[in-house]
Amino acid sequence: MQEHHVVVVGGGFGGLQVVHGLKGANVRITLIDRRNHHLFQPLLYQVATTALATSEIAWPIRRLYRDRREVTTLLSEVGGIDRQNRKVILTSGETVPFDTLVLATGARHAYFGNDAWEKHAPGLKTLEDATTIRRRLLLAFERAELASTEEEKQANLTFVVIGAGATGVEMAGMIADLAHKVLPPEFRNVDTRKTRVMLVEAGPRVLPAFTEELSAYSKKALEKLGVEVLLGTPVSDCTEEGVKIGDDFTPARTIIWAAGVQASPAAKWLDTPSDRAGRADVGPQLNIPSDPDIFVIGDTASVMQDNGKPVPGVAPAAKQQGAYVAEVIKSRLAGKTEQPAFHYRHQGNLATIGKSAAVADFGKIKLTGVLAWWIWGLAHIYFLIGTRSRLAVAWSWLWIYLSGQHSARLITQKETLKDEA
Amino acid sequence: MQEHHVVVVGGGFGGLQVVHGLKGANVRITLIDRRNHHLFQPLLYQVATTALATSEIAWPIRRLYRDRREVTTLLSEVGGIDRQNRKVILTSGETVPFDTLVLATGARHAYFGNDAWEKHAPGLKTLEDATTIRRRLLLAFERAELASTEEEKQANLTFVVIGAGATGVEMAGMIADLAHKVLPPEFRNVDTRKTRVMLVEAGPRVLPAFTEELSAYSKKALEKLGVEVLLGTPVSDCTEEGVKIGDDFTPARTIIWAAGVQASPAAKWLDTPSDRAGRADVGPQLNIPSDPDIFVIGDTASVMQDNGKPVPGVAPAAKQQGAYVAEVIKSRLAGKTEQPAFHYRHQGNLATIGKSAAVADFGKIKLTGVLAWWIWGLAHIYFLIGTRSRLAVAWSWLWIYLSGQHSARLITQKETLKDEA
Repeated sequence: MQEHHVVVVGGGFGGLQVVHGLKGANVRITLIDRRNHHLFQPLLYQVATTALATSEIAWPIRRLYRDRREVTTLLSEVGGIDRQNRKVILTSGETVPFDTLVLATGARHAYFGNDAWEKHAPGLKTLEDATTIRRRLLLAFERAELASTEEEKQANLTFVVIGAGATGVEMAGMIADLAHKVLPPEFRNVDTRKTRVMLVEAGPRVLPAFTEELSAYSKKALEKLGVEVLLGTPVSDCTEEGVKIGDDFTPARTIIWAAGVQASPAAKWLDTPSDRAGRADVGPQLNIPSDPDIFVIGDTASVMQDNGKPVPGVAPAAKQQGAYVAEVIKSRLAGKTEQPAFHYRHQGNLATIGKSAAVADFGKIKLTGVLAWWIWGLAHIYFLIGTRSRLAVAWSWLWIYLSGQHSARLITQKETLKDEA
Repeated sequence: MQEHHVVVVGGGFGGLQVVHGLKGANVRITLIDRRNHHLFQPLLYQVATTALATSEIAWPIRRLYRDRREVTTLLSEVGGIDRQNRKVILTSGETVPFDTLVLATGARHAYFGNDAWEKHAPGLKTLEDATTIRRRLLLAFERAELASTEEEKQANLTFVVIGAGATGVEMAGMIADLAHKVLPPEFRNVDTRKTRVMLVEAGPRVLPAFTEELSAYSKKALEKLGVEVLLGTPVSDCTEEGVKIGDDFTPARTIIWAAGVQASPAAKWLDTPSDRAGRADVGPQLNIPSDPDIFVIGDTASVMQDNGKPVPGVAPAAKQQGAYVAEVIKSRLAGKTEQPAFHYRHQGNLATIGKSAAVADFGKIKLTGVLAWWIWGLAHIYFLIGTRSRLAVAWSWLWIYLSGQHSARLITQKETLKDEA
């Protein structure tokens, strides 16, 4: 009998956990991703704000499985699924047959019908997104230094972050820190302490996943760093010149989008029902209703918690789902017909504000300030893959802490002043 | 009296040394570069071959001068020089007036009239060049893994390096190492030990700047790593499909150009005589013959040694010239009318071959093998800027040495299999 073939699409937190959980099982595994690297997205904002280098938070996927001969890694893009013939269709035209399929293809940022904004307000999901934002941030200060008018100077020194979830809060804090603490001694024609960092949120508070007390603390901590926090203020337009909030237009050369995501097209490939954000509906075993052997997990699946709320789109949720699916596959291969339903265990929420404050919410225990910041740092180092990355990130942070200097302040790719795009 | 204004164009080894040498002098300095970073070019090939990360060998120029209030750093591109009115013309249209001008704008790789080859055989001068080559290298192995025919597989596993100077030798050695030692356990459909690395040189030997004995040793060391060394074989064509050597066509998906450089257009801006490679002719004080206050140094100047040979285009030569020019400027400001001529002190040649061999030529002392490799490594760490970079590079190398794993194996920018360009 031929070995059971599990195809996993997506090398993010969910996909890797499936492969990890199937270690030792009598299956052949093919892991497909259109990137050659797994990315530690929770620290991506630190690459965008020059604290970490790209290679510190990304690892070649195939290296992770060098010792697992049953795992084949393919750098390929998936274009569809042929459910009838049990095949994944690659955009190259080739196909990969499967017995069990796990789709863990994640999400992209979404502009809710305002796709034209993307050009002016890039989001943060990939390494390229991070180096794009880093380039724009650094070029804005360079342009301010060269500017001949006060208006041009101030427009370049105005940074608008849209969306006050964890990513938005973390970005705004880091930009304020960079402008007010790191850069001032380096510029001659401009005072970077005059930088305005605006955090614009349509909802009533920052960090809505936290308690109201922690949201209020975070708002204050941001304001202490010099961030202007605007709540209940939806953005009505983003242009090359700036951002419109209600009817007020603010000239700003750098706008960053941290306001929402849209699932990858997994549900479309499968022609299966999905929610408004494109997340596929899945049953209690995380497979789609019409096919027990096709699982969807992570940011591209719509899963409900026991309390009726959706499972949040965070790394621990994707990892739990990946581990669960691996167990279900093994259980079914062992001939068992019944599997317990997936149950999400919420481990808590963490977010940092600048370089010395953070908020942590572990249900009964809630922390703020320096202690929360240390827990945040240690947790993130712990979850990085491999000794080398842990040491490298710990070292980069220690260096920033001791010297006040960021190590990855490079403008690369299209780095001239004119053709940035 | 207004302060004397020195404008330095180019933040490479030469330009930085001028600024360094003018510390404490009664001058105002403007340093112009179209990049925001100084690049340690001697280790650029290690970024291209995944051993080092971009941020380990590049530093924001303006950070270097944060404590020197008299130094202004401009991220701008120079488009010409108005000698009559003593102004540097930026491509943005603005101008920067100067009293003394130092042009240290370096060189780019040159294709000797075959500019169409650049697309297929990229050179290695900037961080973008390095990440482009890294992407192509890594994608070639990925494509070999996906290839459906043996021909396609082998074409992807064939790497041609054109030019056997230090860069070519170092690139070829690292690619062979990667293919034969690092990658084999990670691929399932292809045996990366079947990789062909060809080092093609039109001249009679590798590393022509070294003695014949050291060249012969290097050739053997390369062959031991599995590199095919072809001498006296000029390349007659480079296409998307491969490379033509004499009348023989070899299918190869990855070609790297390390065969020659062309000076930046400084001589054209000045309308001053230059040599065949575009390097401006300069007098014994490194200024152009028609203007004592305009200096040209480094790879963009043609300077003769006492023995009638040209000063080589290496970092130590540029640094010596930069230091010399700073002394001349200070001496002239002090009212002295005579300055000694520039005299190049040759400090030796160093080159590595893979991860454990190297050649060193210090005139009377010549070294090969592991000892030369250690000297090479220590010398390069010593010349990096700043404690952090020294520690980071030392750590990356130690990690590679201990684990056999490269830390910067990322495919970024246009990373899909189709639209690589």
